[in-house]
Amino acid sequence: MTLKRLTGALLVASALTTGVASAQDESVTIGVSIPAATHGWTGGLNWHAQEAEKRIEEAYPNIDIVLVTADSPGDQASDIEDLISVQQIDALVVLPFESDPLVEPVRQAKEAGAFITVVDRGLPDTTIQDVYVAGNNTELGAVSAEYFKSRLDEGDNIVILRGIPTVIDTERFDAFMAGIEGSGINVLDNEFANWNRDDGFEVMQDFLSRFPDIDGVWAQDDDIAMGVVEAVRQAGREDEMFIVGGAGMKDVIRGIMEGDELIPVDVLYPPAMIATAMDVTVANYTSNGPVRGEYILGAPLVTPENAEQFYFPDSPF
Amino acid sequence: MTLKRLTGALLVASALTTGVASAQDESVTIGVSIPAATHGWTGGLNWHAQEAEKRIEEAYPNIDIVLVTADSPGDQASDIEDLISVQQIDALVVLPFESDPLVEPVRQAKEAGAFITVVDRGLPDTTIQDVYVAGNNTELGAVSAEYFKSRLDEGDNIVILRGIPTVIDTERFDAFMAGIEGSGINVLDNEFANWNRDDGFEVMQDFLSRFPDIDGVWAQDDDIAMGVVEAVRQAGREDEMFIVGGAGMKDVIRGIMEGDELIPVDVLYPPAMIATAMDVTVANYTSNGPVRGEYILGAPLVTPENAEQFYFPDSPF
Repeated sequence: MTLKRLTGALLVASALTTGVASAQDESVTIGVSIPAATHGWTGGLNWHAQEAEKRIEEAYPNIDIVLVTADSPGDQASDIEDLISVQQIDALVVLPFESDPLVEPVRQAKEAGAFITVVDRGLPDTTIQDVYVAGNNTELGAVSAEYFKSRLDEGDNIVILRGIPTVIDTERFDAFMAGIEGSGINVLDNEFANWNRDDGFEVMQDFLSRFPDIDGVWAQDDDIAMGVVEAVRQAGREDEMFIVGGAGMKDVIRGIMEGDELIPVDVLYPPAMIATAMDVTVANYTSNGPVRGEYILGAPLVTPENAEQFYFPDSPF
Repeated sequence: MTLKRLTGALLVASALTTGVASAQDESVTIGVSIPAATHGWTGGLNWHAQEAEKRIEEAYPNIDIVLVTADSPGDQASDIEDLISVQQIDALVVLPFESDPLVEPVRQAKEAGAFITVVDRGLPDTTIQDVYVAGNNTELGAVSAEYFKSRLDEGDNIVILRGIPTVIDTERFDAFMAGIEGSGINVLDNEFANWNRDDGFEVMQDFLSRFPDIDGVWAQDDDIAMGVVEAVRQAGREDEMFIVGGAGMKDVIRGIMEGDELIPVDVLYPPAMIATAMDVTVANYTSNGPVRGEYILGAPLVTPENAEQFYFPDSPF
């Protein structure tokens, strides 16, 4: 493997100097290991990985993408073993099922000579990765807060549905609270809804029964937001408030394109980031530009004006 | 321009859903505005921008890159005006000559509807940019410190040549000093050498005359390192010490490939980052992955084992 990698590097270096994509000359195998499509976001993840695979293999005939999906951390560890020993991958793009159990498998891929791109859920040992691609939870909270400030006045009331108690949730929540500080917007309560539609429904039913005056709901996730919408509609209070989720779910994006007033905007935390990670990994073999580093994707506000570019009607999410 | 952009976005969105590079359908003009090749690093910048232009235009026949180089901030401002009004660019990739004078020109490009990618020298108003691509000065200092610790023992002596008193220099220096803390490595002195070969020569002559025992030199820049090498050779003390610069100058990289002992390694801060920025901007029109965000490139250690991939023999730098 080491010899193969060295030859590859020499060919790449020589091809680059001519300004021609080196990937024309040398075959490159890129393994992509992601969790199976167990819920909405991972459904989108799988779809976007497949789309990127088709697009990349069409653009670069000598690049082979091997996409594998895992049902558990253990499953993913053995997927990665196979990618190394059977597929003899040159590079690994991995969105870890869980961080800790994947450290050793990914380290073994690195030691076998593979270029490593880690996506979204970081590994505790960051020295293993060549590239890290991830969303920006702090920006998601801050951008959401800006929108609430633009829509609400001092004394207006909101409720907040949180995710699962994790670093991701804390980053989102803290940035939102810092963002609305001093605005006079009144947070009636916040509760965990576990990034889950059913929990979103139940928590919102509770909020609706307790608070007669709600002007806005920050659900910070589109799955939760779907549950909130259902609870609000059942209570017949959809003219009273607006709801903001987060991610970029296609039903939410379509609603925004159509001018929906209940969920008027979204904040991006897109499963399509797997495609970005695959592109950057491909560029390691095709571009004269360096790719090693950290690529933290923005969390832009999705509005009726820009929603089209985030709409993928064939995606399951 | 707004209408054109909207149509473009719709076409992109619809093409993406088929998994085919949308860039086949719609012509896209990307303006690239960079400083002229006034010294080593900007020479490399210009060369890599031209290489990327050739490569991208060959891969995507409908993408037109318009590369313009400026001799001053005022020159760059009028370049950008022309890119907007004459070339009607869809996107702007800009490495600002200076940060402050370029804020308004880049803002005007943004307001005219262009997608904005800022490279290396950030704008004080970060809300204008869609993507920011830059090197990592803190990592450059930290990676250099790790190398010095791996080569030197407690009580060994080093000298440090710094750049120009700027945030970039401070980030590099502070990270290096934090990195060697507790190692017992003794810093005899540090002086500014202005990222300049002649200043590197003079400062090093002074160090050589004052210090009879020097085990290592951290020059943190390859231009400075070239001056240091000359001073050390003139003093006949090249067997006494090693020198580490920074950037990825081709003469330095070739020396590393050939096993040079005076400059055994380098730390990357590559002018080729302009190509990375151009690739990411192209991906905004060709990929299903999102590209908005911050891409901070790593500062890996260049060693005999990996030097080939950073070697561009046709580049002037």
